[in-house]
Amino acid sequence: MSDTKPTTLVIGAGLIGTSIAMGLVKAGYSVFIQDIDATALDVALTRSQAKKFDGQAKIDLVVVATPPSKVAQVIRQAVLDHPTAVITDVASVKAAVLGAVADLDQPSLARIVGGHPMAGREVSGATAAQNNLFVDRSWVITKLPQTSENSVALVKTMINDLGAIPIERQVDEHDLAVALISHTPQVVASVLAGVLNTADKDHIALAGQGLRDTIRLASADAKLWTDILANNAQNVSAQVVKVAQDLLRVAKALNENELDSINHMFKLGAQGRDLLPGKHGAAANPDSLIVVRVEDKPGELARLFNVAASANVNLEDVRIDHSLGRMTGLVELTVSQDKREDLIGALTNADFVVVN
Amino acid sequence: MSDTKPTTLVIGAGLIGTSIAMGLVKAGYSVFIQDIDATALDVALTRSQAKKFDGQAKIDLVVVATPPSKVAQVIRQAVLDHPTAVITDVASVKAAVLGAVADLDQPSLARIVGGHPMAGREVSGATAAQNNLFVDRSWVITKLPQTSENSVALVKTMINDLGAIPIERQVDEHDLAVALISHTPQVVASVLAGVLNTADKDHIALAGQGLRDTIRLASADAKLWTDILANNAQNVSAQVVKVAQDLLRVAKALNENELDSINHMFKLGAQGRDLLPGKHGAAANPDSLIVVRVEDKPGELARLFNVAASANVNLEDVRIDHSLGRMTGLVELTVSQDKREDLIGALTNADFVVVN
Repeated sequence: MSDTKPTTLVIGAGLIGTSIAMGLVKAGYSVFIQDIDATALDVALTRSQAKKFDGQAKIDLVVVATPPSKVAQVIRQAVLDHPTAVITDVASVKAAVLGAVADLDQPSLARIVGGHPMAGREVSGATAAQNNLFVDRSWVITKLPQTSENSVALVKTMINDLGAIPIERQVDEHDLAVALISHTPQVVASVLAGVLNTADKDHIALAGQGLRDTIRLASADAKLWTDILANNAQNVSAQVVKVAQDLLRVAKALNENELDSINHMFKLGAQGRDLLPGKHGAAANPDSLIVVRVEDKPGELARLFNVAASANVNLEDVRIDHSLGRMTGLVELTVSQDKREDLIGALTNADFVVVN
Repeated sequence: MSDTKPTTLVIGAGLIGTSIAMGLVKAGYSVFIQDIDATALDVALTRSQAKKFDGQAKIDLVVVATPPSKVAQVIRQAVLDHPTAVITDVASVKAAVLGAVADLDQPSLARIVGGHPMAGREVSGATAAQNNLFVDRSWVITKLPQTSENSVALVKTMINDLGAIPIERQVDEHDLAVALISHTPQVVASVLAGVLNTADKDHIALAGQGLRDTIRLASADAKLWTDILANNAQNVSAQVVKVAQDLLRVAKALNENELDSINHMFKLGAQGRDLLPGKHGAAANPDSLIVVRVEDKPGELARLFNVAASANVNLEDVRIDHSLGRMTGLVELTVSQDKREDLIGALTNADFVVVN
């Protein structure tokens, strides 16, 4: 290792791989990058200032950043090509990927560390890469039984050097977790949105922000997501069946006018919603929602945020609710409870109409 | 009618009823209001400057703004109490409500006009009411076969005087539409959120913005929503079953590794997502998404929106994506395609990092 930083090879010049290369170059690593797509590689080399891998340099750390379905074979090759390197990957599914290399010998497996940076975006490709993509993001590490502590330590150092937060999870636990919090919501959003294709246009015309939020994820890339689900099929299938069965129970309760059951379902939903982590991983937040009416013209949002800044209020979240046929917008500002009155006072003084 | 405006009685001093009273007072109507809850009535009278109904004034227009389950009986009473008035309601379900008064005589039915202002909020109660709650919102009108054109005209005038946009729909079409675009997404969000109650906390801890969006609606009020679903049970049940069956098909395809079917499902979802109306009821928008990294401190959002305002760019939508453990936020700005380059240039000049 030169200058105590591991010489690193990133394989795969997409959004994640290029962002890793950029971040590691910035952190003072000697970084090589390779990709079977020459165009993507060129973009990544230009953007990252990493070097094209010449096959000669001794590599200490390999980061496999290919699509999930290619990861196992790339790891296998890396084990041979870089006989002393620690090898990690960034696939959003872990059991299938790591299971497909489990027949490697003990010394090889000791060098393999699973990884999953929680920093995906709708955008993709090397042109969208950023050296700070992982700053303050979680980065899940999954060990094999044979993985050595030295290998884990090296990957953790890399994660820290990228500004991210390493979190250890068991392989199976990771895949169960992402089935629950990512893959199943993705399926539900896509299925709910898919139903609109056969719906009457006059019906869809009445849709507002509620439906829009619920199916936002449905814009996702079909190819990438098919690959992801294929590698977590059993977990996702089980979870999707659970949701479907709950929906069928709701339908039955509606048909049989069992309103207590419907009421209970809504209450459980609200409870579940409150379990989501807040900003910075805090527990479900006791934040306060302020709804403001804003004219739909340039400058009004700036004026709104200037008022918030002058009142020294940090906004936890902002949403704009546009509905069919309205020329004004409702802006929802989430602030910590103790700042609520300050902000409402400042907004009212500035002639904004606070709706709630 | 005094001064050509119909003397109006609003029955029900909740968010919608009080907002209607406030808006009509502002529009120069003589407005009375009544509610069986004396506290709510006091708040509504103070906020709206409407008068408490004395039982004496001759009423030209009655607006029934009670919970859905009470609407039919209140209409029946209003028919007797106000023998020449036009009577409308604001229930978000129509067939059950109007069906429950269908046995009234022809002259009474001629005076009844169904209505549904598309302006619900998570907030509720007279304290949250606003005289401009309906400005530029859609307001669906549903006629009975016996409803007279004069009655419809009077209700349309009221809707216009509140700044809203009247849209006529058949009773059954309205209920089908809201089952599709509102009630079923509500059930799906609540069921998906409900599943979290039995999930491992370590799994939920990894959740990000995607799940948060998908289950946002689950915070809704259980009592009100049970009442709504009870009055649209058949439509919602059919739609929920459709979604559940599609989910079961996805689960089966996953179990059988039918990846073409999974890919097709995702593509249909993206197509369906694009069918949603854009801002101001425009067709699915060709808007452009710009993702900007913003420091999480007071003033940075204001600075961002000042840059947008100076560049004379109108923002169609704004979202802030906070994830577990990050001290920076990604702000997603939606702008029309032709403003994209202008805004990116202005942001970059102002030292903002544009991520995509």
